Amino acid sequence: MNTPSSLEELIGALRCLPGVGPKSAQRMAYHLLQRDKPGALRLAGALGRAVESIHHCAKCNNFSEQEVCELCSSPKRDPALLCVVEMPADLLMMEQAQCYRGMYFVLMGRLSPLDGIGARELHLERLVKRALEQPCEVVLATNFTVEGEATAHYIATLLCAQGIKVSRIARGLPVGGELEHVDSGTLAQAVLERRMVTE
Amino acid sequence: MNTPSSLEELIGALRCLPGVGPKSAQRMAYHLLQRDKPGALRLAGALGRAVESIHHCAKCNNFSEQEVCELCSSPKRDPALLCVVEMPADLLMMEQAQCYRGMYFVLMGRLSPLDGIGARELHLERLVKRALEQPCEVVLATNFTVEGEATAHYIATLLCAQGIKVSRIARGLPVGGELEHVDSGTLAQAVLERRMVTE
Repeated sequence: MNTPSSLEELIGALRCLPGVGPKSAQRMAYHLLQRDKPGALRLAGALGRAVESIHHCAKCNNFSEQEVCELCSSPKRDPALLCVVEMPADLLMMEQAQCYRGMYFVLMGRLSPLDGIGARELHLERLVKRALEQPCEVVLATNFTVEGEATAHYIATLLCAQGIKVSRIARGLPVGGELEHVDSGTLAQAVLERRMVTE
Repeated sequence: MNTPSSLEELIGALRCLPGVGPKSAQRMAYHLLQRDKPGALRLAGALGRAVESIHHCAKCNNFSEQEVCELCSSPKRDPALLCVVEMPADLLMMEQAQCYRGMYFVLMGRLSPLDGIGARELHLERLVKRALEQPCEVVLATNFTVEGEATAHYIATLLCAQGIKVSRIARGLPVGGELEHVDSGTLAQAVLERRMVTE
């Protein structure tokens, strides 16, 4: 009613952020305009630049500015191991745990039929192709949530049918736990104790 | 480490939003780049436009695109009442309650010495000048928090010294409130500030 239109537009636009409802969006807009206009402009610039320059790595599907990301083109990584994670944050946690020196495939999500995310949205055909190109063991490191487990099971079935060796990181993680929030010691243990999947 | 620099920049820039820590910023950046690039660009545009066009109304200090906002220039408002609120959201709530037809002064904050917000940051000298320009009753409608109360007390002292009429919105049980579920402070205040019932 008395809200200027460009302020209303900003409040509306902030709601595209996950977990930001009308009240939070309003609070964020007020904060930026009242106390941090340079921050707002920096954010606007960063959004534009990131949208323009960030693509998916052709090999691991992670966010990258290059065609093939740094990790995938590194000669130091072991090509006989291919770890499947849900999100880039999970990959970072794996790297921080320093327990794994193989390659990755980042799903950028998990099977979630209710949200319309199926095998096609996760590019599982690319994962199968990737695993067939180079003989390797696929280490499934999706979360131990219901959706993560379902995703792991689905991928295991898919890969085992092609005769690919598949393992799952050990349930050293608490049931319902997420990779992003676990301590690196537990995560390292889980990688160490990975078990072969046999259909 | 393996995070592309423009992604890292975006995650850093998102932290200028209030209540957004490193994990949330990361989640937001992933969400935008993976699922809502149009939303990210819309947000970038909205931020730029809002920072450019939103200023403070010369009279009420609320956000406005004009020199004097719509509400302040409306002839339908009663100039003999001047309501002081903390934030634009409070003004919107007052308007929604449809209980008040006077003018406003928006502090854009509250006294908070620990955050470095004093009388100068709240432009209280402008409020005093405003109240002296036009004889009026100043209705203090800051929050009933410790900081809001301190702000109201400070402003009341300031205005009373100038011989300006000052009132404070009432404290008491909320409409629909039950004695059993209200906190004892509110109940004590409601008893203390009881009003005589006249048939």
